[in-house]
Amino acid sequence: MKVTVKDIAKAAGTSTATVSMVLNNKSARISKATRERILKVAKELQYVPNKIAVSLATNKSYTIGLLVPDSCNMFFDLCANGVERYAYEHGYSVYQCNIDDSVEKGLKYLDNLATRCVDGIIIIPPSDINYNKNDKRMIKFFKESNIPFVLLDRAIINADTYYDFVSSDNKRGAFFAANYLIENGHTNIGCVVGPKEEYNTKERLEGFKNALRYNDIPFDESLIYYGDYRFESGYEAAKVLVSKGVSAIFSFNDLMAYGVYKYAFSHGINIPDKLSVVGFDNIIYGDIFPVGLTSIEQPAELMGQKACEILLNKISGNLQDDNPPINYFFVPKLVERNSVKKLV
Amino acid sequence: MKVTVKDIAKAAGTSTATVSMVLNNKSARISKATRERILKVAKELQYVPNKIAVSLATNKSYTIGLLVPDSCNMFFDLCANGVERYAYEHGYSVYQCNIDDSVEKGLKYLDNLATRCVDGIIIIPPSDINYNKNDKRMIKFFKESNIPFVLLDRAIINADTYYDFVSSDNKRGAFFAANYLIENGHTNIGCVVGPKEEYNTKERLEGFKNALRYNDIPFDESLIYYGDYRFESGYEAAKVLVSKGVSAIFSFNDLMAYGVYKYAFSHGINIPDKLSVVGFDNIIYGDIFPVGLTSIEQPAELMGQKACEILLNKISGNLQDDNPPINYFFVPKLVERNSVKKLV
Repeated sequence: MKVTVKDIAKAAGTSTATVSMVLNNKSARISKATRERILKVAKELQYVPNKIAVSLATNKSYTIGLLVPDSCNMFFDLCANGVERYAYEHGYSVYQCNIDDSVEKGLKYLDNLATRCVDGIIIIPPSDINYNKNDKRMIKFFKESNIPFVLLDRAIINADTYYDFVSSDNKRGAFFAANYLIENGHTNIGCVVGPKEEYNTKERLEGFKNALRYNDIPFDESLIYYGDYRFESGYEAAKVLVSKGVSAIFSFNDLMAYGVYKYAFSHGINIPDKLSVVGFDNIIYGDIFPVGLTSIEQPAELMGQKACEILLNKISGNLQDDNPPINYFFVPKLVERNSVKKLV
Repeated sequence: MKVTVKDIAKAAGTSTATVSMVLNNKSARISKATRERILKVAKELQYVPNKIAVSLATNKSYTIGLLVPDSCNMFFDLCANGVERYAYEHGYSVYQCNIDDSVEKGLKYLDNLATRCVDGIIIIPPSDINYNKNDKRMIKFFKESNIPFVLLDRAIINADTYYDFVSSDNKRGAFFAANYLIENGHTNIGCVVGPKEEYNTKERLEGFKNALRYNDIPFDESLIYYGDYRFESGYEAAKVLVSKGVSAIFSFNDLMAYGVYKYAFSHGINIPDKLSVVGFDNIIYGDIFPVGLTSIEQPAELMGQKACEILLNKISGNLQDDNPPINYFFVPKLVERNSVKKLV
């Protein structure tokens, strides 16, 4: 027999109105304990909302879109998992769209999602959004379509306003990484970074410079190698930076750090004896190498969850339109393994 | 100015009817050269189909769904890339849904996709589809909803009929792996496999047994460790199999082979001197280790492309409903690196 809101209310010992508010994610004024009890009971009774009825009553699709720039980067996979699981627990489905790090493709997907009437969109922007004219078209889309959205991991900096945005404190994370290398006696540090105008590259580079300044070490632009966050560019970067005699490389993500590893392995350069390496993201593979990769951990799943929480609040009207935009930053942390040698 | 079908026809030197057929993927009778020329011209002119007009005329959404069991396994990421890029080139968007390897979640997503009127669905089934009653519900969904679909990577074996299905020849791939180990003098081989009733586990196990039989080596069930295709179960498997004195481990995917690597590294067991390892999938990380992982390569992107090609043909009516189901298998190949020692 079909489980109704009434059944849940009875089992949870609440009113049906309370159950409805919780299940429709309009529970701002309901205590956390009650909300969790109701969700638990709904789950136990295997409650399935009647979608068509709900849609007619609420004019909602209970579906959100998620734009991801590179589906082969595990960091984004983890962000996506966080979004999906949070959404699913709250009765929403997630359509993930892989946009191959292209503003152009992103625009087409946004258009498509709008046609399908999704209730909201989470977007990890493509890395080129900040340095060509296209970014205005994406912003324009959101302004005109009026669809609630939240930015995840990468902000849009060349814009006339702030937007809701969830990330980790990248500047601080990079500071931790560089300061750790310096504390271990390294002063001649190379960096493999992302595309020049990409948000996280800018943030992390600033954090790196702050750490140098903090330790009275001059910054040397010639030790910065601009990559693209993919494995291969880490390999190329190592070739260049090793020839410049650096004792350590700070890679702005783990994938490129693996490229550095590969270069070192295939050229008989022992890590950490001859070359120290620190990564960023802390995806699981860093733990598999015989010399574990020391890396800055970002809580990717939590970031995805938080972005989804904010989006669902916007959709349900718990956040008013005139609310100031939320910029939510998680604190990254250094995970120490064996890829850095103490020089002093 | 907006580019029309007429503009494309003029530039490509064909009739507008031909252009329409190609752009609407009804080009069964048009030569490959013409088709490719038209698609190239359409791309160069940056042709954008008018979605609403097209939808009204054709009753199509030009959107397909893609169900993926584990978004953190790079093999599935590559399959998804293949689907997405092929679809996108042919004017379709792809909604990827991550179902956490659960039939239950898969069913909810199927239901949602049907509500949103997708034109077709590609599904990499969850690993438990073959051993509980739920699989019938998924099949039932497709029968009742009448939405065209194609299975990718994993077949549904407990079903009363065949379905369109794209994969690689897993049995053959496993034969290659085991035979390679045997040719290198290994006779005491442990296997880390997937869940017992999962399609690829069955196929690969059969291929493994065939190779033993072919080389007159008895099969020893106690050397089979049932894992779940995730990293951690490879680590656990190595613990068990090493204690049984195997000289080599054949892992049914690369992720679990990395778990074997980790166990070996952290217990001072040299690969390949003390333990040989072969994986399956050949995702890029196998190339990063100081001892590269020998693995069976599956053309994941091509598999995704082919599944999408078949689906679009079904959607466009190029494949009739009474067509016998297509079962398309790519040939896997062994990629030799340094993880196997020659014993003789």
